[in-house]
Formats: sequence, C-alpha cells, structure tokens
Amino acid sequence: MSDPGLNFASDNAAPVAAPIMEALVAANTGPAMPYGADPWMPQVRDRLRDLFAWPEAEVLLVATGTGANALALAGLVAPWQTIFAHRISHIEEDECAAPEFYTGGAKLTLVEGAHGRMSPDTLRAAMAPVGAKGVHGVQLGALSLTNVTEAGTLYTVEEMRALTDIARAAGMPRHLDGARLANACVALDRDVADMVQGFDVVSFGGTKNGCMAVEAIVLKDGARYQEMQFRRKRGAQLWSKHRYLSAQMLAYLRDDLWLVNARRANDAARHLANGLRAIGAEMVHEPQANMIFCRLPRTVHDRARTQAAYYMMEESDRPLCRFVCDFTKTDVEVEALLALMRG
Amino acid sequence: MSDPGLNFASDNAAPVAAPIMEALVAANTGPAMPYGADPWMPQVRDRLRDLFAWPEAEVLLVATGTGANALALAGLVAPWQTIFAHRISHIEEDECAAPEFYTGGAKLTLVEGAHGRMSPDTLRAAMAPVGAKGVHGVQLGALSLTNVTEAGTLYTVEEMRALTDIARAAGMPRHLDGARLANACVALDRDVADMVQGFDVVSFGGTKNGCMAVEAIVLKDGARYQEMQFRRKRGAQLWSKHRYLSAQMLAYLRDDLWLVNARRANDAARHLANGLRAIGAEMVHEPQANMIFCRLPRTVHDRARTQAAYYMMEESDRPLCRFVCDFTKTDVEVEALLALMRG
Amino acid sequence: MSDPGLNFASDNAAPVAAPIMEALVAANTGPAMPYGADPWMPQVRDRLRDLFAWPEAEVLLVATGTGANALALAGLVAPWQTIFAHRISHIEEDECAAPEFYTGGAKLTLVEGAHGRMSPDTLRAAMAPVGAKGVHGVQLGALSLTNVTEAGTLYTVEEMRALTDIARAAGMPRHLDGARLANACVALDRDVADMVQGFDVVSFGGTKNGCMAVEAIVLKDGARYQEMQFRRKRGAQLWSKHRYLSAQMLAYLRDDLWLVNARRANDAARHLANGLRAIGAEMVHEPQANMIFCRLPRTVHDRARTQAAYYMMEESDRPLCRFVCDFTKTDVEVEALLALMRG
Amino acid sequence: MSDPGLNFASDNAAPVAAPIMEALVAANTGPAMPYGADPWMPQVRDRLRDLFAWPEAEVLLVATGTGANALALAGLVAPWQTIFAHRISHIEEDECAAPEFYTGGAKLTLVEGAHGRMSPDTLRAAMAPVGAKGVHGVQLGALSLTNVTEAGTLYTVEEMRALTDIARAAGMPRHLDGARLANACVALDRDVADMVQGFDVVSFGGTKNGCMAVEAIVLKDGARYQEMQFRRKRGAQLWSKHRYLSAQMLAYLRDDLWLVNARRANDAARHLANGLRAIGAEMVHEPQANMIFCRLPRTVHDRARTQAAYYMMEESDRPLCRFVCDFTKTDVEVEALLALMRG
Repeated sequence: MSDPGLNFASDNAAPVAAPIMEALVAANTGPAMPYGADPWMPQVRDRLRDLFAWPEAEVLLVATGTGANALALAGLVAPWQTIFAHRISHIEEDECAAPEFYTGGAKLTLVEGAHGRMSPDTLRAAMAPVGAKGVHGVQLGALSLTNVTEAGTLYTVEEMRALTDIARAAGMPRHLDGARLANACVALDRDVADMVQGFDVVSFGGTKNGCMAVEAIVLKDGARYQEMQFRRKRGAQLWSKHRYLSAQMLAYLRDDLWLVNARRANDAARHLANGLRAIGAEMVHEPQANMIFCRLPRTVHDRARTQAAYYMMEESDRPLCRFVCDFTKTDVEVEALLALMRG
Repeated sequence: MSDPGLNFASDNAAPVAAPIMEALVAANTGPAMPYGADPWMPQVRDRLRDLFAWPEAEVLLVATGTGANALALAGLVAPWQTIFAHRISHIEEDECAAPEFYTGGAKLTLVEGAHGRMSPDTLRAAMAPVGAKGVHGVQLGALSLTNVTEAGTLYTVEEMRALTDIARAAGMPRHLDGARLANACVALDRDVADMVQGFDVVSFGGTKNGCMAVEAIVLKDGARYQEMQFRRKRGAQLWSKHRYLSAQMLAYLRDDLWLVNARRANDAARHLANGLRAIGAEMVHEPQANMIFCRLPRTVHDRARTQAAYYMMEESDRPLCRFVCDFTKTDVEVEALLALMRG
Repeated sequence: MSDPGLNFASDNAAPVAAPIMEALVAANTGPAMPYGADPWMPQVRDRLRDLFAWPEAEVLLVATGTGANALALAGLVAPWQTIFAHRISHIEEDECAAPEFYTGGAKLTLVEGAHGRMSPDTLRAAMAPVGAKGVHGVQLGALSLTNVTEAGTLYTVEEMRALTDIARAAGMPRHLDGARLANACVALDRDVADMVQGFDVVSFGGTKNGCMAVEAIVLKDGARYQEMQFRRKRGAQLWSKHRYLSAQMLAYLRDDLWLVNARRANDAARHLANGLRAIGAEMVHEPQANMIFCRLPRTVHDRARTQAAYYMMEESDRPLCRFVCDFTKTDVEVEALLALMRG
Repeated sequence: MSDPGLNFASDNAAPVAAPIMEALVAANTGPAMPYGADPWMPQVRDRLRDLFAWPEAEVLLVATGTGANALALAGLVAPWQTIFAHRISHIEEDECAAPEFYTGGAKLTLVEGAHGRMSPDTLRAAMAPVGAKGVHGVQLGALSLTNVTEAGTLYTVEEMRALTDIARAAGMPRHLDGARLANACVALDRDVADMVQGFDVVSFGGTKNGCMAVEAIVLKDGARYQEMQFRRKRGAQLWSKHRYLSAQMLAYLRDDLWLVNARRANDAARHLANGLRAIGAEMVHEPQANMIFCRLPRTVHDRARTQAAYYMMEESDRPLCRFVCDFTKTDVEVEALLALMRG
C-alpha cells in the first residue's frame, strides 16, 4: 500500500471524523464520573430515543460492533435456542463465535437468500423444522437482520417488516445489526425510526462511519436494561472513562453527522461503481450503499493491486474484489483509483 | 460534585493526558490498516519487550482492565482449575465474574492477607487442599497478584518473587494485574523489568494513569499468542480502528510518560495522606502509591462530603473513606481539599 | 482392600438395594416410550408431590448428584450472581466446578461455620458485601444448604428455616442439596415435607442410599419446568431409556424404602461411633447421620488400614479418618471392624 | 399404543437385553470402589483396545449418547473452531446444543449430502471458506461422522477413509458418532477395527442396542485422557456407582452380544423394509441397517397408526414415516405390523 490515499479496503481503515475528534478533545477537561455516569450519556440516550421514536429506549455504549451484536443477542436468546441470520451475516462470518460465547452456546441457523438478503420464504423454510424435535432440538430464539447487508445491498423498510412480522408471529424477538445503518437510511431515504420498527434491539454503528470506537446497543424498552448492564460488565465491555464513548456518540448524532458521513460514503461508492462498470467490472451484487462487490477484468486488477488497497476475495481470470468507500472518500480519490485502473 | 476540581473518587474520573490526546490526533490522518495491522503496533510491542526485558514478548491491546485480566487468565487456566487471588483482588471483587465468563467457569480461590497482600503462608494454606480430591475438585490453575494492591499497598519485588516461586514450584503460571503497575514501579523505585520477573503474563494498565482506554496484555513469549488473538476477537475486544489503541500506548510509553504520570499521582497522594493524618485521619492501610484508605473524623467528613468527591466505604462515627489521586492532582488541589476538611 | 465386607469408604461403594434391582428387572419387559414418557414417571412425580406437600411440584430425574445440583442451581441464578454455600459444601469441593459450568460462570460465595453448618450470622456476614459494588461485583443469587452436611452433621428444621428466611428476605431462591436427605429425615425424625419448607428446589438423592444412579430435581412449582427440561437435555443428562430412572426412584419411595435404608445406615454409624469412641477415637464433628469424622489413635489406624477401607483425610499421630456407613452395614460388619481395630 | 409389542418408534423404546440385566444383577454384590475404580473397568478398556486395535486407547463411560458426543468433541476443538458435521447429524439436530455447551460455544458447520452422508466434495466445499477471514472467523476444528447415519444409511470403510483423510490433511482430528456402530459393522460385515481407522475418538454406543444406559468414549491414545476425566466430572457425567456402567459395557462386548443384537435389529429391518415395499411404501433412503424412512400409502398408515408406534415425520397423502427395529424385534412382530398394515 504505497499510497495510503487509495485505500478502499474497509471503512475500518478510515480515520476519525474531525467533529468526533474535536468532541473527544472537548470532553477532555477535568474529572467526570466513570462507567456511564458522565453528563453526556443521558443526552445520548435522549437523542436516540427521539431518533428511533422509542420513548422508553435504553442505551448501552460499547467499543466494538461484535460486542454490540453479541451482547444484544445474549439478551434475547437462551442457550437452547437458535438465532436466524443470513448465511453471510457478520454474526456468522466475522465474529469468531462471539455470539456463541456471549449467549452461552446458542446456535445460529443460517438463512439463505441471494445478495445477502433473506426472504420471507427462506426465513420460513429455515424456521420450519426448528422445534419439531421437542426437547432434543434447539428452539426458536431470535431473528437477526443486517442492513446494509454484508453484500452491500439493502432491505427496504417493507422487506424488513415482512421478516420481523414472521418472527413476531412466532414469538421471536428481533435484532437489527445496524453497523452501517446510517448508510442504509441515506440510501433508502428513510428515517431511522422507520428502519427500526419491528425490532426489539438495534446495534447502531458508529465506528465504521467516522467514530473511533463506539456502537450503541439500543433497547426498545427498559425491561432488560439492568441485565444488559451486568452482561456488558461481565463481558469486559464497560469503559471506565466512559465519557469518551458518550462524547463520540453525541458528536456523531449532532448536526446529522452520521447521515452526512454516510451520504459521502454512499456517493463515493456510486461514483466508483459507475466508473468500475465503465471499465468492464461486473457487479456481483447491486451496490446500494458504500460497498462494491465485483469481478474485475484481470488487466484492471493487475494495474491497480500494487498501488491501491482493496480485498481480492477470489482469485480468477476475473477476480472477485471488494471495494468499500468510507466517509472520507472524495471524487478525487475515486477518480485516482479509476485512472490507475484504466492504465 | 459541585466542584469537579475536587474529585478524588477514582483514577477513572481523570481526563486523558495531553500527550496521549495529542497522539490520538496525530494518528488521525489518512487510512491505516485495521485490527492491529497499523504501523504503530510493532513499535508498542518492541517498546514493551525492551521495558520488560522479555525479548520474545507478544502484546495484545484491549480497552478495559477487566478485559485484559479476563483474557490473560483465560489463556492460563482450564475451566476445571482455580486461580489463586487475594480476597479483595480486582478479579474477585470488581469484574462481575468476567474471569469466570472468559475462562469458561474456572474458580477463584481467595487468599487471605492483611492490607491486600497475600503472604507465602496464606498462599500455601490456600493451595494446600486443592487437588486432594482428585477429579472431584478443581485443580491448581494459576496465581494472580495485583501490584499496586487494591488496598493501595505494595508488594516488593522480593515479596512477589517469593509468591511466584511457590506457584512455579507447583507448576502454576503467574499473572500480574498491573492496572497500576506504573505507580508501583515509581513507589518502589524499581524497573518494570524487575517487577515482572517471575510472571508469564502481565496486564499492563494505561487507562487509570492517563490513557483514554488501553491496557496491554503482555505475554512473556509467543506460545499462546495465536490462541490469545482468537480469544480477544471472540471476546469482542478486538478494535477495528486499532491504531487508536496503539497510539495511546505508544504515547504512554514515550518519554516515560507512564512513570511521570504515576509519580505525580503518588506524590499527590503522599501529600494528601500527610495532610489527612494531620487532621485526625487514621490510615487503615499504609498508603504506598496513589490510594488512601482511612477513617475520617466525622466532622471532617461532614465538611468535605458535599463539595468533594470520594468514596465513603463504610458509614460510622469515623467513616471509612477512599481517596484516589490521579495523575492530574496538584498540590493546589490537595491543599484545597485539606482546607475544605479543616473548615 | 482384601476384605470387601469391611468397606466404610463411601456410601457410593455400596451395591443397589434388592427392591430397586428387582424394580429394574420388573421394568424390563417390552417397549416403553423414552425420555420421560414412560408410565412410571407420573407416579414418581405424584409420590414426591405428596411427600414434599408440594402439590404443584415438577420433577426431573438424572443419574448423578452433581448433575442434580448443577442443573438445579443453573435454574436459579444468572451468571452475574453468586451462590451462598458452606465452605465444605459438595458443590464447592466435590463437583469440579460443575456448578460454574452449568450456570455459565456464576460464583460461589463460601460461608463459614463450624461442623459444616453455616449460621444466620455467618450467612449474613457473607451476604453483606455482595451487591455493594453495583455492576462491578456479582449480585445476590441463591442460597444452597446441604442436609446431612458434608461434615455428617445436621441442620434442624428450624435452623434451615432461619437461613432460608434470610435468603427469602433478600430476594434469593433457596436450594437444598439433599443427597443424604433421607438420613437427615430419619436422624431428625421429621417428615421430609417439614425439611423442604422454605426451599424452591431440592436435589433429592437416591444413589447414595440404595439406588443405582438416580437423583430427583424437585421443583416447588412448574414455573421453570420447561426451561429445566432444556437444561437437562443440553447438559446431556436426559436418559433415552428413562424408565430405568423412574423405576429406581419409584421403588426407592415405595414402602418407605428410602427411610428404611437411611435408618440402617444411621444405626450402623451410631453403633460404629460408639465403638470408635470406646477405643479412643476423638470425634471431630458430632456424627448425626451416617458419616463419622474422627481422629484415631495411631495404633488403631495401623491395625485397621490394610484390611478395611475408609478415607484417611489427614496423616498425623492421630490421623483424621472418615467412615461412612451405607444402608447395607450390619452390626456384624461394624463389630468386625471394631474387633480389627481393637487388635 | 394399545399393543406395546408393535413399537417401532425408536431403539430407545426397547428394554435391556437379558445378558446385560443379568450382568447388572451379578455385579450387585458387596462393595466396589466408585468412580471408575471398580474391577470391571480395566476389562472394558482392554476389550475395547483389542476390538479397535488401538493398543493405547483409553475409555470413559457415560450414560447418554449426547454426553459421549459432547464430551468427545469438547476434547477436540477450541471454542473458536468449528465442527464439520452432516446437516442431519445427531449432534446438530438431536442434542439441544449440548456440543455447543460442552465446547464452550464452538460452531457446527453443516455439510450437505444426500441420504445423511457427506461426500468428499461436500466436505471440501464446507471447509473451503473456513479460515479465510483470519481471526474474524472460526477456524477448522474437527470432523464428525455418524455411522449408521441418521438416515439409516451407511458409509463404507473406504468412504469414511476418504473423508477422514481430507480432515487429517487439513490438520483436523476426527470423531465418529457410533451410537449405532454395531449395526454398521454387521451391515457392512467389517470389523470394528476397520471402521474406526482414521478416527481419533469414537462414541461407541450401547444404549440403543440393548444396554440400559452406557456409551463408551474411546480415545485412540492417552494424550487427553486426564483432561477428559475432568471434563466428564465437570459435566456431571461421572457415575459414583460406576460399576454399573462397567458391567453393562462388559456384558455388551462379551460373546459378541453387541453384534448379535445388531444383527437381529438389522435382519428385522430388512424383513420389514421388504414387506413395506410390497404394500406400496416408497423408501426415502435405502435402509441399510435398522432404520427405515419411507412414504406410506395413506390407507396403510391409517390402518396402522392407532395400533402401532412409529414416527410420522411429515403429514401428506403419502406420509413420511420412520420405523426403527431394535434388537428385540422378531419376524413375528414384523409380520404382525405388516398384517395390520395390509388390513
């Protein structure tokens, strides 16, 4: 990676957005009570209550997306239950069995579906056999959706609703992995309150979209709030100098920074996708937010790979590559990458 | 807490030291590879190898002290073993069973000892019955010492060595909870390399001593390094934007900031302890680092409690109180507190 | 152990009582539905409902005492809670951390007390600090008493009630480890219904008192019955050919066999204790049921040890020895042991 | 189930074979040392060493098949690894997440394949993506095969070898779920020593084939024997009156009873399958051992269902039904069932 400016490897490679770093600096004066008793945390909670239109919501902040998901799910399922999640969901593929660890050994039942999305039919098919074996098999536990999906595609509000309705009818709570929820809101042009309808708990991401390390576990109501606080501490995820989590999240929500950042990332990805198509890339999934999965002509890949950072997921004549645009990506950078690829 | 300047509640109430915040800002330019592949992490490792005189050491950074301890111990013991720790150790009293969670259900065997310190005799007494019941009882697992202790006292290098020798002779690995190891080094005027002799893994604290949220798990050698990486990820403690952990720790170790900060805290505590004694406080433990546990005359406490923050641990005619000096505490603040108490 | 007739090592060394073996043979005809759907299990439940005077009780049978205890406790406490148990309780000393495994890592807080018995004072002292540290420490979980205690002593009904009242007042459920509950009922001449007052779940032992391998987890009501069935299966403790558990327990309860056997064991132990005293043994705990802990004159021990089986728990001039009388022990055998010891 | 003679529901519905019950009765004299120190256990180990041609094998006995599998797997994989098992394997479908519980939260990666059998291609396809995500995903853990499969079909020795070779080449240990291994040996007319080649640990079943409750965990060598003993105790699966496990297994292996019983079951199933075909049943899987999965003509099912016990797995015009023949099934019973069905 000789030119770090051409880094499309991950939204995790991005730095921290200036307003968030400024908020950290601003919070850095004098003492503040630790462990969530800082004066910023109630503001975070109130802001998320408003945004989600969940007036009784409770919020726990943690530093990692895996932590948010694993804790959220541990609050929803017993270890003799199973979580319905897409085959390529983050909780299945990218968390090294943290959900199993935090839930005490619950299962994940993998739901099929093209382009990272399950459908009512594939969800029902996955649910159908569960419970049929009585005490011998695991039981219906929870539904976990991801939006933006791990394929860079979207569920519409209505598509999510159809899925959460199935889960609700079966008595299962619903979790939304919203590590990139801001990108989904922007791409769909929908309020986050619409997006979270039908869910009981949301992992609301900050880190990938301009924060340093903060994710909010948003509980629709306070029923499990105390239990979740114990779970967070016992999971070693309770910060002592918690104000630096609160300050990040508060700055992230202020002045719609979360949406502004997501829009930049999505715009850059749209620009990049168009450019890639023009030089022969074949989209494997329709890019709907800030991630692009495509097959590149070999020559294009060979020109770019030593000077730009992105993941090659499958070697071939037309290698399968992933490009992620974070919130810092500009037209200039996108054009620089495309120019490199054009040779 | 009307005057936040008079906060002696916890070193966790302190802000972040300026050089560390500056390092975070400095690290905040352009992309960096995530998950520990940032360019700063090898420097952190090399610096700790030098300081500890452990040339083959491997280092994992996490955000919480509980996380460092729980992961470190999980790498040392099987769930059918027990960890020998002082009755008032952090892993027993302040981690909400995180060690049990991370180890899969290992036990803690509590070792007695005045002023937060176990002795060779109390350790041997605790170890004696373990293993006598064969497969029915838990087995000898690991020794975990804390220095500075939770009573604000110290083990000398020689005292630690006597204890780690007992554990080594019994085939047990040794863990040092060094959440305040800097304060111990300064107070004892010993190199950290001397302090960590006899241990296999150290939780080297940063957060309480001027960092935002970073602790190093320092492994004496690489034997369990790969396993520990999986454990960290599965525990949801692997940061994506890891550079901000690396940058904190690097700044903490640069120009002896860790020792400079600790010296300030210890000096302030010495100043405060002397002043408290002069107004009738009775020390419950001899304050040797940056924590003071004492019984205050009731009138003294009554004068101070509404305008200064500190913990009252036991209500009585002479309430038992804890004062912690963090690295920001100045003579001016200490005098202000004492003046308040004098009335 | 040249003469297996002189085996006082454990009630686990005993064979199966004839009526129970006969019941197993009698149950061994034709097919029976597996996993608890056999026709004997409802009778077991109804019999225990009557005996315990718990009209809504539900019952789960398992094969080991450790299994009964670990499952019972797992149904009572969260992993961020602690179980109050005597320092020498079976769940602490003899189950290799099975309670920690089954509860997902809950703690045991050890309660002191002479002769294997906690007192209201020692229980209160152990409970006092728990919860004081908020989310940082584990929380009040459950009380677990053992009767007959591991020291071979007894709690009276009133003593148990005083302890369970303290737990109830603190909001904690109560568990009784009744591995030798029959021996306690006989020794105290109290109905089991009196003994289980104040508890929520009882491990009702069969194996040590004449069964082959069966213990009943008796739940006071059905609130957690379904959950417990999942816990049992997931713990690998659900028998497929369950009729052979049911048949054992039913035979054990029929014609007061459980009391008859216990009376034999207790009587033999009384006989043996008197004889041991007469030859210079010093009782370490007053033997109240079927276990004797005493210091033997060295010569007595030397005469007996190669021809009789019993545990020497501590080597000394007056070695500390444990003798257990199972239900098969007769006056002849006791006299034979005493004769051997007298030389 | 008006006529218990017509019970084809499960091999778990069967009683205990006479020689095994006789062995239990024979073992029931006088004391015997508990917890595996009985005199029969070394004979069990030696007999299995001979049969398996594993001269260094170690053996642990437990009471349930789920217990054998869960413990065996816990000894093979870390919680950040995954176990490759067929989609309809017992460990996936019938153990209520016991493997996840005992392994501390390892995953199961489901391998596809018709008729309950994975193939080299489907195994390789399942393994291919594992490990590609480094620390973010779970790692290659172990291969678990089942023979007889849960579809009542068989792997040949050569087919197993092809699969275990793939696992070995990838550095993965191999587990055989042999709950019905006797039936497989008989059906294939192969020595068990041939069957277990290529495996590291075998769950060798007794319960389904005439025992009361005993399964052997057979370890190829002693490397993990001590660890497994702790795991068994901590899992609450160590019997105190262990002689009754030893005696069952010893009788099971004596005079080839295990093979005699399996042959009876297989013969009855062949008879039944032929008869079912003759009255219009359509085999869903080719019945190769003692289980039959078939679609019955509706009228046939309607005639039989109230007077015979078997599982209807899927309601339809041609309901999918499962018939299992245990070792007690005779030609008379099979003919009685067929007569009932013919009307």
